[in-house]
Amino acid sequence: MAAAHLELIALPGLPTIREGDDLARLIVDAAALGGLQLDDRDVLAVAQKIVSKAEGRAIDLRQVVPSEMARLLAARTGLDARLIEAILAEGEVLRSRPHLVIARHRLGLVLASAGIDRSNVESEEDGERALRLPLDPDASAARLRARLRELTGVAPAVVVTDTFGRPFRLGAVGTAIGAAGLPALLDLRGRVDRNGRTLQATEIGLADEIAAAASLLMGQADEGQPVVLLRGLELPPATPAPAAALVRPPADDLFG
Amino acid sequence: MAAAHLELIALPGLPTIREGDDLARLIVDAAALGGLQLDDRDVLAVAQKIVSKAEGRAIDLRQVVPSEMARLLAARTGLDARLIEAILAEGEVLRSRPHLVIARHRLGLVLASAGIDRSNVESEEDGERALRLPLDPDASAARLRARLRELTGVAPAVVVTDTFGRPFRLGAVGTAIGAAGLPALLDLRGRVDRNGRTLQATEIGLADEIAAAASLLMGQADEGQPVVLLRGLELPPATPAPAAALVRPPADDLFG
Repeated sequence: MAAAHLELIALPGLPTIREGDDLARLIVDAAALGGLQLDDRDVLAVAQKIVSKAEGRAIDLRQVVPSEMARLLAARTGLDARLIEAILAEGEVLRSRPHLVIARHRLGLVLASAGIDRSNVESEEDGERALRLPLDPDASAARLRARLRELTGVAPAVVVTDTFGRPFRLGAVGTAIGAAGLPALLDLRGRVDRNGRTLQATEIGLADEIAAAASLLMGQADEGQPVVLLRGLELPPATPAPAAALVRPPADDLFG
Repeated sequence: MAAAHLELIALPGLPTIREGDDLARLIVDAAALGGLQLDDRDVLAVAQKIVSKAEGRAIDLRQVVPSEMARLLAARTGLDARLIEAILAEGEVLRSRPHLVIARHRLGLVLASAGIDRSNVESEEDGERALRLPLDPDASAARLRARLRELTGVAPAVVVTDTFGRPFRLGAVGTAIGAAGLPALLDLRGRVDRNGRTLQATEIGLADEIAAAASLLMGQADEGQPVVLLRGLELPPATPAPAAALVRPPADDLFG
């Protein structure tokens, strides 16, 4: 966190991702195309969408049969009952209102539609498909990192990013759902400021800050820049922690 | 949002900030020291702490007389009753538990201790001082930007940043409390993805993403790097909006 200079570079030339694609290979190729050699100190922010696509997490809504509960929630929100059924299969609905369902995903993530996205699924598809989050995004990040090491001999940290709405704040922001090779939650407890006073902010959502930074380059309008390389981040010595560490336990939440 | 490359540079050599300091002048000097010439397309992220200090927002807790309510909350949380009194003067307490008070600041911001910070107040002080948020951080950002234009002829966008805890997520992250010269909340409603589908995330918390990115360089441990220059951010054409636009109206909040 003490670097004087940080660079973010969107990797160029990534193709549309399909199920079974070797993302690590495509990332290495894209980095080479950009004249970049990956480094152990780099961080790669990778959009959830392409991880989910590579892992075959798309579903065909025509094959989803809505339950009674899904039909009730659909009537209340105006959303597609099949989409709601898919959401219910991913987690527990916490709140709803017209055009919006907020769910707690089984991963603990609280987000709209349990992270299921109907935009930007394969361009040649018929619009009846939706994309779910990876089954285990921390494991996805770890696998991607291991495969990068296999291909290149170096293992940049990996953050899988999504875009979350938030209580109290308008506007969605990039947020980490998976991480490997860095402390997603950076614990500064016990450290003191230069006057010897205990720090006010003692745990930093490092991977979330990385995801938000990467989101500035990824944009929203297409998946043209789904991988962003961060170079120059100087991390304090700390044990790596997955993005699961960023999930506040419900019992600890004053607003849930 | 479509740049391929984004640079973040912590401005070097900023002195400890004191009440009445001309922050713009100090920033221009620090940029020059770093060999940087400011540009209209740059964004300057400025830590709330130095804005508050320059604006004389420190208070001496020895002069604060706690009310009955403050003493009750102090007993419940273990926090200093004078600090709680200062919090109550800044906003409304929403939740509390041992060592933590979450308040809605009169600016609408929901954050710990209404943003009042006891760490890193002047090093020569006696520890009885605390720092409040700027009176109007959007106006602070606008004034800083106007003064930069006066001094240099160019007007980078300005984001005043603080560090917020969050519902549902552990770890504090950089968050925007003031902004000038950019759309703090970027409205993409009506835009469509490349398949003609309406975007899922239609409002982006742009200034919050900028604050989170800058926070990666600012660090937490001291105020050594309280100004970060972002260069290369390509913003879509959009009307500027202040950070106040990022405050979700309580009536719109499903979790407040």
